[in-house]
Amino acid sequence: MSLSGLTTELQSILGEAHITEQDCRVRIRPGSTSELALCLAALNETGTKVTVLGGGTGLVGGTSADNSAVILSTERLTELSAVDKERRVVTAGAGVTLQHLQNLAQDSDMRMGLDLGARGSCTIGGNVSTNAGGINVIRYGMIRRDIRGLEVVLANGTVLSDLGGLEKNNAGYDLKQLFIGSEGTLGVVAAVTIALHPAPHGQCLLLLGFDAFAPMYAAAQRFLSRFPGRISALEVMWRAYYDACSRGLAITAPIGAAEVYLIVQVDLDDFDKGPVEAFASTLDDVVDGCIAQSARQEENIWAIRDGSEVIERAHPIVHSYDVSLRPQSLAIYVDEITTAIRRNFTDTQIYFFGHLGDGNIHVMIGLDDASAIAKSRLDEAVYGPLTNLTPSSISAEHGIGIEKAPHLWRSRSDNEIATMNTVRRALDPKSILNPHIIYAPRSAWLTPI
Amino acid sequence: MSLSGLTTELQSILGEAHITEQDCRVRIRPGSTSELALCLAALNETGTKVTVLGGGTGLVGGTSADNSAVILSTERLTELSAVDKERRVVTAGAGVTLQHLQNLAQDSDMRMGLDLGARGSCTIGGNVSTNAGGINVIRYGMIRRDIRGLEVVLANGTVLSDLGGLEKNNAGYDLKQLFIGSEGTLGVVAAVTIALHPAPHGQCLLLLGFDAFAPMYAAAQRFLSRFPGRISALEVMWRAYYDACSRGLAITAPIGAAEVYLIVQVDLDDFDKGPVEAFASTLDDVVDGCIAQSARQEENIWAIRDGSEVIERAHPIVHSYDVSLRPQSLAIYVDEITTAIRRNFTDTQIYFFGHLGDGNIHVMIGLDDASAIAKSRLDEAVYGPLTNLTPSSISAEHGIGIEKAPHLWRSRSDNEIATMNTVRRALDPKSILNPHIIYAPRSAWLTPI
Repeated sequence: MSLSGLTTELQSILGEAHITEQDCRVRIRPGSTSELALCLAALNETGTKVTVLGGGTGLVGGTSADNSAVILSTERLTELSAVDKERRVVTAGAGVTLQHLQNLAQDSDMRMGLDLGARGSCTIGGNVSTNAGGINVIRYGMIRRDIRGLEVVLANGTVLSDLGGLEKNNAGYDLKQLFIGSEGTLGVVAAVTIALHPAPHGQCLLLLGFDAFAPMYAAAQRFLSRFPGRISALEVMWRAYYDACSRGLAITAPIGAAEVYLIVQVDLDDFDKGPVEAFASTLDDVVDGCIAQSARQEENIWAIRDGSEVIERAHPIVHSYDVSLRPQSLAIYVDEITTAIRRNFTDTQIYFFGHLGDGNIHVMIGLDDASAIAKSRLDEAVYGPLTNLTPSSISAEHGIGIEKAPHLWRSRSDNEIATMNTVRRALDPKSILNPHIIYAPRSAWLTPI
Repeated sequence: MSLSGLTTELQSILGEAHITEQDCRVRIRPGSTSELALCLAALNETGTKVTVLGGGTGLVGGTSADNSAVILSTERLTELSAVDKERRVVTAGAGVTLQHLQNLAQDSDMRMGLDLGARGSCTIGGNVSTNAGGINVIRYGMIRRDIRGLEVVLANGTVLSDLGGLEKNNAGYDLKQLFIGSEGTLGVVAAVTIALHPAPHGQCLLLLGFDAFAPMYAAAQRFLSRFPGRISALEVMWRAYYDACSRGLAITAPIGAAEVYLIVQVDLDDFDKGPVEAFASTLDDVVDGCIAQSARQEENIWAIRDGSEVIERAHPIVHSYDVSLRPQSLAIYVDEITTAIRRNFTDTQIYFFGHLGDGNIHVMIGLDDASAIAKSRLDEAVYGPLTNLTPSSISAEHGIGIEKAPHLWRSRSDNEIATMNTVRRALDPKSILNPHIIYAPRSAWLTPI
């Protein structure tokens, strides 16, 4: 079938309003799971490549559509169930934004386990497809942990619907696990049943400054031991990041200057911050610190932590990385890549921040040099040291997309990559779903063209 | 290759001591992942069916080996890493028992998330393969949540090794999820990296009696709201179960007689039980109750809860079920199946107990009638009412094995079952792994022979 013949068929499924053409591509917006299934069946029949688009906030090019004729947007999949307050679950279409779900949860005195900076634009379907992480992973885990049900459409239009939201169901394979974090390459997420959490009765937010990583890490460990299961954020920022974000956002420094900053959020059974204050006063080696005393102070601390857009604007080119390693290896890693980058580049600014509790650090590097060679040298400087610091991953929470595909071999064996492709071929034999996302072994990237 | 030729090859891999013949079957005991891989490659080459055996404590016939020539025991895969105290992880061979890991965790002032009655015999490999649940799911989830890494061997001998134990790794598919809960049909688990939890500073165990389900359920909800994230067990027993177990174990009743019993375990930041005692005194409708004041009292309460073996011995035939539904539907369900069973059988005793927090109830039914017809009518009585109480599952935590295979259609659609088999064929094209475990749609069970 020609693309125009296919377009006619898609129009008959969706109605003309929900299919548009742009730059030789067709953009379709199904309004229900059954429309989505009909569209995919038609695309699969003709072997037409399709790129799945959620909120478009991914950081690794996962929704680039260079080699797809069709872009499938989930924006109209916005059906929502009422919050089930007894079971603490809600069911949402893939196109619902994270923030919308967070607000719904809050209205019922509950909380989403997932929170991240792009909350206002990212969609729950994209969150599922990338197994999103964010700032509360230390308490609630990646979103995988809270996903109680999925409705997914396979490449050939087969609908797998399991939205019941049962906590326990060992009746055969837990197929939904396959679609979480597989970047839309195995099926398209249409709807999600997600577990909510009771809101804590209170919270206490601390910002603490230290003159080095080691005392900061020791303090963090003490918090974890003192308040087991009640630390909901444990974030770290190195000085360059903290300074750039607070300056760029014109936020008056909440505490005096330090080399490494630690954010600790403790969930309280009561509103009483007393035990946390008493504990904080026993910490050694704190250069300066504060316990937020108002919502405004809390907002300021989080604004600095979430201020990475300031850095995006501060340099002609900014490359961002998202690596994972043992938390206790972070200091060595930061030193090693700083040395490697300084050796290769002059006039570079390096920013470190991230999720201390999960060993997940984000690295942003501001350059003047936009060349591919510069990027390649930078990749080697950032990824190279991971080899000697195993276990480690080139992608903690951002996924592979197109940006990280050439480096997948650093974190997955040839056997693992081959098995990924075995599963992918089984579920999408015509390779129509997100074909720009390639999981290939190192040898494939080294083969001369 | 003949079975004797294969036996010779397996002997050369394992040495004669680790291969035995019995009842026309060969039992092999690989001592390492590489031996396991060589064995599977040889078995796959010849298309020889193999049944994987862990501790053999499963309740659904998952390790029955009727149509396998080879039994593969993981008993020698007992390598253990030291506990990583900072990251709170440990790596263990598939053959290590759950209790051994629990003891290791305790020695480091930590706790395994998983606990269940068969702890002394069941192995961690079996726990992974069946996605085990147990009594602490309400706090720690099924074992899936704590699995940080797996080493798995595919049917053809391919080793997938990912034992790093990273908290976050979104580098391509999270393949380990496939092998959790798939009952050894997709690959054989050789080793596991598992997350441990900080031991709570203290615990408080309550046993409360009520005269009906509704006030018991209301009290449980109040505990969950009052101590969010700190309830580590929330178990329910109906009178017949409680009476039979306490009488059978000759345990003096900790509290006066009631219709429904609730066990609540609250994790404490400190050893002070004061807040829990104060809260418990505000509960209405408690017929009688106690807060355990000694380790002995705690043991007695748990002995009653874990006393199901008493019931196994009390009747000529006992059929056990493990269903999952919304916690708020449990009372209706109990009434419905009691009525249905009483209608079909005289002289039957029905015992209900289970995990209230997860909506997972175990039903044990003592009969005199060992016939297949009786079993079939009982299945219908227990499973039938689930249809109108969706979401529900015929297997909350025990898996499918052979016992539940004819009922899989009640909990999974034809599309889901077909997709399970697509994945299974892709990873085990010769169907050598646990061939007695069959995932088939309803129509397959209805086809005349």
